[in-house]
Amino acid sequence: MAPQYAQSLRFRLPPLLFFLQTGFIVVFIVYVDIEQNVQTKQHAFNNYYSEFQDVHVMVILGFGFLATFLVRYSFSGAGFTLLVVAMAVQWAVILNGVESMYHRGNILINMRSLVVAEMCTASSLIAIGAVLGKTNPVHLLLIALLEISGFVLNGWLLQTFVKVQFLNTIMLLHIFGAFFGLMLSWVLYRQGSEQQHEKEKIDRKTGLFSVMGTLFLWMFWPSFNSVLVEVDHLDRGRSLRAVYSTYLALAVSAVTAAGFSVLTSPQGKLNLFHIQRCTLAGGVAIGVAMSAVHLPWVATAIGFAAALISTLGSRYIKPIMLFAFECHDTCGVLSVHGLPGILGWMVQLLLQIADSDDLTTAVRFAVFHICTLLITLSLSMSLGLITGFLLKCHFWRPPQNKKCFDDQAFWEFPHQAGKR
Amino acid sequence: MAPQYAQSLRFRLPPLLFFLQTGFIVVFIVYVDIEQNVQTKQHAFNNYYSEFQDVHVMVILGFGFLATFLVRYSFSGAGFTLLVVAMAVQWAVILNGVESMYHRGNILINMRSLVVAEMCTASSLIAIGAVLGKTNPVHLLLIALLEISGFVLNGWLLQTFVKVQFLNTIMLLHIFGAFFGLMLSWVLYRQGSEQQHEKEKIDRKTGLFSVMGTLFLWMFWPSFNSVLVEVDHLDRGRSLRAVYSTYLALAVSAVTAAGFSVLTSPQGKLNLFHIQRCTLAGGVAIGVAMSAVHLPWVATAIGFAAALISTLGSRYIKPIMLFAFECHDTCGVLSVHGLPGILGWMVQLLLQIADSDDLTTAVRFAVFHICTLLITLSLSMSLGLITGFLLKCHFWRPPQNKKCFDDQAFWEFPHQAGKR
Amino acid sequence: MAPQYAQSLRFRLPPLLFFLQTGFIVVFIVYVDIEQNVQTKQHAFNNYYSEFQDVHVMVILGFGFLATFLVRYSFSGAGFTLLVVAMAVQWAVILNGVESMYHRGNILINMRSLVVAEMCTASSLIAIGAVLGKTNPVHLLLIALLEISGFVLNGWLLQTFVKVQFLNTIMLLHIFGAFFGLMLSWVLYRQGSEQQHEKEKIDRKTGLFSVMGTLFLWMFWPSFNSVLVEVDHLDRGRSLRAVYSTYLALAVSAVTAAGFSVLTSPQGKLNLFHIQRCTLAGGVAIGVAMSAVHLPWVATAIGFAAALISTLGSRYIKPIMLFAFECHDTCGVLSVHGLPGILGWMVQLLLQIADSDDLTTAVRFAVFHICTLLITLSLSMSLGLITGFLLKCHFWRPPQNKKCFDDQAFWEFPHQAGKR
Repeated sequence: MAPQYAQSLRFRLPPLLFFLQTGFIVVFIVYVDIEQNVQTKQHAFNNYYSEFQDVHVMVILGFGFLATFLVRYSFSGAGFTLLVVAMAVQWAVILNGVESMYHRGNILINMRSLVVAEMCTASSLIAIGAVLGKTNPVHLLLIALLEISGFVLNGWLLQTFVKVQFLNTIMLLHIFGAFFGLMLSWVLYRQGSEQQHEKEKIDRKTGLFSVMGTLFLWMFWPSFNSVLVEVDHLDRGRSLRAVYSTYLALAVSAVTAAGFSVLTSPQGKLNLFHIQRCTLAGGVAIGVAMSAVHLPWVATAIGFAAALISTLGSRYIKPIMLFAFECHDTCGVLSVHGLPGILGWMVQLLLQIADSDDLTTAVRFAVFHICTLLITLSLSMSLGLITGFLLKCHFWRPPQNKKCFDDQAFWEFPHQAGKR
Repeated sequence: MAPQYAQSLRFRLPPLLFFLQTGFIVVFIVYVDIEQNVQTKQHAFNNYYSEFQDVHVMVILGFGFLATFLVRYSFSGAGFTLLVVAMAVQWAVILNGVESMYHRGNILINMRSLVVAEMCTASSLIAIGAVLGKTNPVHLLLIALLEISGFVLNGWLLQTFVKVQFLNTIMLLHIFGAFFGLMLSWVLYRQGSEQQHEKEKIDRKTGLFSVMGTLFLWMFWPSFNSVLVEVDHLDRGRSLRAVYSTYLALAVSAVTAAGFSVLTSPQGKLNLFHIQRCTLAGGVAIGVAMSAVHLPWVATAIGFAAALISTLGSRYIKPIMLFAFECHDTCGVLSVHGLPGILGWMVQLLLQIADSDDLTTAVRFAVFHICTLLITLSLSMSLGLITGFLLKCHFWRPPQNKKCFDDQAFWEFPHQAGKR
Repeated sequence: MAPQYAQSLRFRLPPLLFFLQTGFIVVFIVYVDIEQNVQTKQHAFNNYYSEFQDVHVMVILGFGFLATFLVRYSFSGAGFTLLVVAMAVQWAVILNGVESMYHRGNILINMRSLVVAEMCTASSLIAIGAVLGKTNPVHLLLIALLEISGFVLNGWLLQTFVKVQFLNTIMLLHIFGAFFGLMLSWVLYRQGSEQQHEKEKIDRKTGLFSVMGTLFLWMFWPSFNSVLVEVDHLDRGRSLRAVYSTYLALAVSAVTAAGFSVLTSPQGKLNLFHIQRCTLAGGVAIGVAMSAVHLPWVATAIGFAAALISTLGSRYIKPIMLFAFECHDTCGVLSVHGLPGILGWMVQLLLQIADSDDLTTAVRFAVFHICTLLITLSLSMSLGLITGFLLKCHFWRPPQNKKCFDDQAFWEFPHQAGKR
């Protein structure tokens, strides 16, 4: 590797890390406290802690190992995810506490603030999925911090001006992250990416690690969709409904993704990429639609439709995005998070219209939901563009084309390894 | 690969998947509801949810990764398990709800119904273990659906005619699954299997993935054995006893399996297959015997005996089954689930006889338990035979001999991979 | 491999396993009971069980897979950890119950006794980390049993003579294990270890397995530090503070370790070994200091300092230990557990001195803490020395130099594998 690239991390990553970390510690010194008054909420906590941990496992292990699928980029996939999460949760705790800091003078750390912070982080990990392998860790940290800022701003705008419920703004994380990432990936497009990069492939072992990440996401997704229902509404019945709906949607989603994967395959075989990602589409869609889903069969139908569009999207839309729009989406976030998220939004709208008694209410719901979606899409896409142009700057030393998708540019060892 | 095999999945798997999935969704539309009245059981739920998740992790990740051990079959091991589970839990929820559908007109989804469905699915995964690598996913789905139907029927028969408690019928899942799988494997025997297939081996990396599956099963087995005790008996003391007993039995089992593995090895070394599977024998045996185990040392003794017969079985009975009975048992389910299950049954019988005051009670217990075992064995074995003959039909296009134990027949990628 | 080594496990490991296991079962028959009276503590249990499982997962899966990093020693890493844990928890349950056995005539098994036993086991796994790859399983079992005996003795001495709280004695497990292991490794030093052993390196796949172990430790560490606070103090607020502090310390630790890893690297790259281990230093330090940490920023500062000394230690002190003191520390336990543990002890001392009102109290605190540390260090180091000399004895047949760090000496298979 060329020496100027070998040096790049040294003079950029540590200063950035120490600058941000010191800044966060200073904010912690001045503003952050741990919530002490837990006696009255003792019972509630018990659920939160184990559901919080499920979310924690999904974010660290699920997203982390899902990103190990590239044959020569697996350390970076898992390692950078850990680094980004460790930094981003601190930033998200602070940002989400700004309002409380303004009103009460301090930021309280409790289970809810940590769960919300992890969900904001998940949103940034989705965005990162679109540019995985074509960036360095400095890029990833900046993307995560900017994406989270945008996502928190979006939530605040929607709550303040459109009166969307907090839970519903959080569940837009899939749409926000996916379209942010897409725009980013479009701006950062490299000439020559139309041809498959020689290192952009799965092998037998990294494929299995990635399947492990998938399974952790798949298994704990019911907690992801239900934890904030429980915390914010203290309604166990509603939270349980979220658990069961997500469980059913994911089961149907796995079956459907396998079916369409074989059906659309020229050789009539399963595609590992679909099994890894499209099986999760049901969880995305039901998460967005959740507040309007009351019957189990609706959950199964959503799971079916989400896996359908996700599999078809991975098979047919991804190449179109690449060739027609010059947008190279490493993890297929459009098909896995973007489209199923919009499907969920549409189902929620339709169900609420169907439930409404008269035309006026129906129109009001439609306007409300369309506003929500438009604000989210335009904010995420414009911020994605801005972030992209910011990162295009040569100052951040993006990896050379031939160093893309390769751990060697960032990790001390292989292959002779050993020296520690 | 020959074109007729490349096509086989396309014209069989997707139609089967969509047919079944549509059928399930229709049943869901007509009959299935989510249990709403949870307010009074709020406390109880808290335990169920985290214990339910432990069982979920065992079934998806534990069994799934345990099945990745074959060097060229690891995607199929993990991927087909996910597919089978996603389909089978829906079928099990519906089947277990048939009685309630008959009496009350609907099927309720709640934590208990999901836990029971996952346990039925575990039973079918055990059966699948015996034919792993020698079948295609269409086979696996049919096996799972038929096995679960048989297992639910067996439970209903035992409860209705022999008055066995529900919990005890569920715990027969190891025996039912193992003997079903054995018969299946006997019918589907292929000429030439006496010689080790060149791909039927472990390598360094798939071995580790498989160990990971083992560890998840090992760690969460106490929840597997205790969750239904808690749900059905609302007796925390009894459920805790199940947790501690299983924990102790598994610890002793791991030590004993390692000891006998070295002792019976010609070179005096450990065998990874024993560490992967025979360490779990204690959990199987204590699960079956549980209702009669009151003292911790009994649990440790059961763990010792189970690991002993399981290790000796893997070393000596498995080759006999292959050469003398032409029954090729890929995962060794006879030694890992069958024999320890029967040991557990025997211990339960002996303990209840020892506890009984007079001869009449003792004889009654003996007759009761022997009937239970005989019904289970005959039903599982006859259904295994029938399923085997059904699958032998060439219509399902079994993989050719030289394509056994190989992902290439079913997965789009390797080795040049890349194209997604 | 030479025949005398092939035989070594056969005539040493199984007899030792069966002797110990039989002994433990006899003790269980005579003394051990399961706690029955749980009705009044029902609520408390719910937390314990899921937090107990987190600790269980950390010990089995976290430490087990963390030890798979050596390229040819991964089966031994995971397998021997399982074997050692299965044996050691039984021993720890018995040892911790000796006092209760003396006073009440029996040993009760409950959640608390299992959690404490797992923590003692974790202590022995830390000690084993220092000699990983240079020992056989017989060695490892003896080390674990002796280390746990020493650790329990140390706790009893500290509680009885220095009046240290039970929880604080347990949290010394990092310091005790690390210095025990260091002395052991010093005594067992082999000529020629200055040169990197050809098999003592990480490869791409074992590296990822090891990262998985790291992530499990990282994710569940908050439970590790808080579970006994909850059990012993029944103070939910204090236990939550432990959760949040550990969470923050670990997040800062991950960021800091990455920063210093790049900064101290000659090529300006990340080092996988640092990401695997030094990210955990924050959890170690905060665990020891916990009882004195009340503010979140203190936790973040501890995380920063711990990762700093851990990364510098791994980079600079580890080679010094090897060349100057002839102490070869495979997993770097000095830098990962020893130094951060002492840092935590020092922070606890400083915070308590800062909190104390007058000089007398401050001096008393200082004497108290210095005594605690000195007793722990001297006991652990002297026991480590004794254990080392005991194991140096040729009777135990240590692996030959060229067989170090190699599964082949202990496992039946690879590479032709297959025969099971």
